[in-house]
Amino acid sequence: MSPDGDLLAILTAGQLDESYAKTAHGVLRYGPREVVCVVDATHAGRRAVDVVPFCDHPAPVVADLASAQALGATTVLLGVAPVGGKLTPAWHALLLQALEQGLSVEAGLHTDLRTYPELAAAAGRSGAEIRDLRASPPDLDVPSAEPVDARVVHTVGSDCAIGKMSVVLELDRAARARQLRSVFVATGQTGIAISGWGTAVDHVVSDYVAGAADRLVRQGADRGDLLWLEGQGSIYHPAYSGVTLGLLHGSSADALVLCHRAGRTRIADYPRTPLPPLPDVVRDYEAAAGWVKRARIAAIALNTAGLDDAAARAAITEAQEQTGRVTDDVVRFGADRVLDAVLTGLG
Amino acid sequence: MSPDGDLLAILTAGQLDESYAKTAHGVLRYGPREVVCVVDATHAGRRAVDVVPFCDHPAPVVADLASAQALGATTVLLGVAPVGGKLTPAWHALLLQALEQGLSVEAGLHTDLRTYPELAAAAGRSGAEIRDLRASPPDLDVPSAEPVDARVVHTVGSDCAIGKMSVVLELDRAARARQLRSVFVATGQTGIAISGWGTAVDHVVSDYVAGAADRLVRQGADRGDLLWLEGQGSIYHPAYSGVTLGLLHGSSADALVLCHRAGRTRIADYPRTPLPPLPDVVRDYEAAAGWVKRARIAAIALNTAGLDDAAARAAITEAQEQTGRVTDDVVRFGADRVLDAVLTGLG
Repeated sequence: MSPDGDLLAILTAGQLDESYAKTAHGVLRYGPREVVCVVDATHAGRRAVDVVPFCDHPAPVVADLASAQALGATTVLLGVAPVGGKLTPAWHALLLQALEQGLSVEAGLHTDLRTYPELAAAAGRSGAEIRDLRASPPDLDVPSAEPVDARVVHTVGSDCAIGKMSVVLELDRAARARQLRSVFVATGQTGIAISGWGTAVDHVVSDYVAGAADRLVRQGADRGDLLWLEGQGSIYHPAYSGVTLGLLHGSSADALVLCHRAGRTRIADYPRTPLPPLPDVVRDYEAAAGWVKRARIAAIALNTAGLDDAAARAAITEAQEQTGRVTDDVVRFGADRVLDAVLTGLG
Repeated sequence: MSPDGDLLAILTAGQLDESYAKTAHGVLRYGPREVVCVVDATHAGRRAVDVVPFCDHPAPVVADLASAQALGATTVLLGVAPVGGKLTPAWHALLLQALEQGLSVEAGLHTDLRTYPELAAAAGRSGAEIRDLRASPPDLDVPSAEPVDARVVHTVGSDCAIGKMSVVLELDRAARARQLRSVFVATGQTGIAISGWGTAVDHVVSDYVAGAADRLVRQGADRGDLLWLEGQGSIYHPAYSGVTLGLLHGSSADALVLCHRAGRTRIADYPRTPLPPLPDVVRDYEAAAGWVKRARIAAIALNTAGLDDAAARAAITEAQEQTGRVTDDVVRFGADRVLDAVLTGLG
């Protein structure tokens, strides 16, 4: 997906400080891709570290594509997830200009940019590439059933959108800080934008979800020996449980980290669907994994957003006592306790 | 998918008596579509009932498309699943001729016939339709969470290819014989060829498996009030478990029928993956259903193919005693005992 030596300019079109720019924020926070600048006229003249919360990236914010190119950018990444995933006329004009200037374009919209004839023509003229972050690999198949030469840790969750990707990114970063050959393996478009490779498993033909996961861990095993495979959805989610189970079974996970939002008792998208108590969530995920390959929940990553520090600590202690698994908020309090529990679990 | 008044000619190209013609056999055995003839030069002059095992359909077998058209055929169905799902030159010539004669063509190959320019052009000239049985509906979405106005029974299985479709077809037929407003709801290409409508859920984008199932039961509820939703795969299958769980959760099933092949102890496609004992399969499926909506396994449909009658009866008795659920081989010994158990379970 991402050629070596790729130098990124991230486009945020006035929204660098807003939550819509979550792709930009993820890439700036977690690397490892080289970002030479952000293109955002509203915030031009400042640095990413000054604008983006929880981010220490020094990349300058510039006003236009010409400035990005002067800084050596070779690829522009659409850093904002537009509402509905649609391409607005303003974005269309900006991406067309980038392609005409010979800059490659990377995006994860619902529509593949290559289907816009004028964008495809501009890329053809300048030799720039258009990369669709959600595109499925053309040669997917079912899993191979051969062992994977790496240890695989997979995040699973009680619900969607509770931080499964951030948890594996934090754990991967903490593991790399310990000089482990650790690799983040992306299964969704934002993760792919961050790491520069991966497969959006929610977008593949349903028969190939497990096969896509199997392929990803084999690709990961070529890059390192401790793999953090991003989870998707929840076995309790009425719409997405199939993706969750296919990914779990295709992952060959050796250990699981359960992600949960403190206090959540119902599926957010389907409030008529209750969540069981946390110890039952642990039991159900271990049972589901064991249908194909046994894997233990080595630790719990609790998302305590919205709680003050004392309430967050109390929620962590309660979850740990209820489940008997090491529990922490890895984004808020650091990943080391959970990482220790995972590494101990892997033996 | 299938317009009212559609009159079928089934093409089997010399293979009417072979297992490759499973689509033809299913449509001839289970109806309800009107079949005016089979086109098969090797068997021409006989009737389906004389050639196809376990089939009482009187349709004549004719030698060519002209004879089919003389009998009033409006649509030709590709009744053979070619190895690898590929279109051979002989089939291509036959389908081209059908389209040129104004006969619509229906097939469930891996490649959509509409992508063959000369077939599409012939259809355009004659006004005939090309129908791809595996095509996904263009407007899929996630499930709606609204109640369905029908009772839904879903077959689940310990493994693939053990007869889940035949079981729901037999149960649907037995229910219709009792004057119930019973509907078979197809989720795979052969089932769609048999009933003339449905969605191949293994071919939709993974995010929409549950949504596709939800949509199917709502379409079924417009046709009757006792729905038999065909199952796919197995929660124990390393490649297809995601499709199975998405379909189970999207089905809103009120009752389940568990299909099992007597004596099977491993996943056939993945012999390193063992199956648990049958009582554990019952427990696991009921647990998995209950993550979203409770549903009991009302009965077990045991496939006793390969056993003699005494061994089959013994296997049925053993499964029933182990699990406490009514068990029978509905294809071999009739569907009434299992149907009674399902109707009692639905209350």
